[in-house]
Amino acid sequence: MIEPGGGKLSDVLGNDYAGQDCALARSLEILGERWTLLIVRDAFYGVQRFTDFQVHLDIPKGVLADRLKGLTEDGVLERRPDPAHPRRPVYVLTATGRELWPPLHALLAWGGRHHGGNSRVFLHVTCPTPLDDRGTCPDCGATPGPEDILSAPVAGRRRRRDDPVTTALRPPRRLLDPIAT
Amino acid sequence: MIEPGGGKLSDVLGNDYAGQDCALARSLEILGERWTLLIVRDAFYGVQRFTDFQVHLDIPKGVLADRLKGLTEDGVLERRPDPAHPRRPVYVLTATGRELWPPLHALLAWGGRHHGGNSRVFLHVTCPTPLDDRGTCPDCGATPGPEDILSAPVAGRRRRRDDPVTTALRPPRRLLDPIAT
Repeated sequence: MIEPGGGKLSDVLGNDYAGQDCALARSLEILGERWTLLIVRDAFYGVQRFTDFQVHLDIPKGVLADRLKGLTEDGVLERRPDPAHPRRPVYVLTATGRELWPPLHALLAWGGRHHGGNSRVFLHVTCPTPLDDRGTCPDCGATPGPEDILSAPVAGRRRRRDDPVTTALRPPRRLLDPIAT
Repeated sequence: MIEPGGGKLSDVLGNDYAGQDCALARSLEILGERWTLLIVRDAFYGVQRFTDFQVHLDIPKGVLADRLKGLTEDGVLERRPDPAHPRRPVYVLTATGRELWPPLHALLAWGGRHHGGNSRVFLHVTCPTPLDDRGTCPDCGATPGPEDILSAPVAGRRRRRDDPVTTALRPPRRLLDPIAT
């Protein structure tokens, strides 16, 4: 596993939005770098291992290592020993990280509405009914957290990828359930 | 007014997340560049003029011009003649752009909850009660759109900026109402 010892890119570039007294600016300091929110998305899908993030996102290992380090330092991810390979880590969303589901789902819903739909659908696990764009279940009115959401590929959509993570994500799965590759 | 004729940075760098069949990736293609979401935030606050965005965000004019061009091409902002200066444009959120309020508010709420609170509060204009972190009014249960939200600075918070836009944003104001500087 390759994880360069260097600091985050933002340590070098400095505080991006230092002049902005705004909670959005602080969120973007943590989440606004290229790839970061897609890594968080994959963590919601149950991706936990460095190699699984890498193969599913197709990003350079150095960039991924930088982002995982930053998200861990910022309390979004927690680094734990991999139960299957104790000398390697897994990266798991913290309680703070799991609270990113509403903004992440809202961004995803906006992109899906205006730019060609999403490749996956999200259902309230107990109903099971697809959530609306606000993340609410139209059936029971609840706004479930990620632990109560089932995610499945949209039927009939052309597959773009064939990596082990994409394959593991083919059957419907509960968000946060660790992926076995 | 300076607006370089060059294309968007993403035109040069290519499609950032081409391998990702994901609506989040497509949202980030449009919104994920540095400063873009803070420009959208300012548009919700009623900022419309190039010079007002520039003075409030303290960003290089070339970066701002690139971002405004991209947001206009992507249908988030609309460029119109400035009623006060017909030869200059103003940039106004489109219907698609106004639909960015839920993800923007959710990101802002997350940052505020975990990283020191926000400098502004958002109230449902008819109640008027501060919205919860999901953007819902605890008083009447509605989830208002930006046109029905009042925004005001949090009382007693130290001011970091003294530019004309920050001054115009001191009294409580309805989102989207054009700022006069």
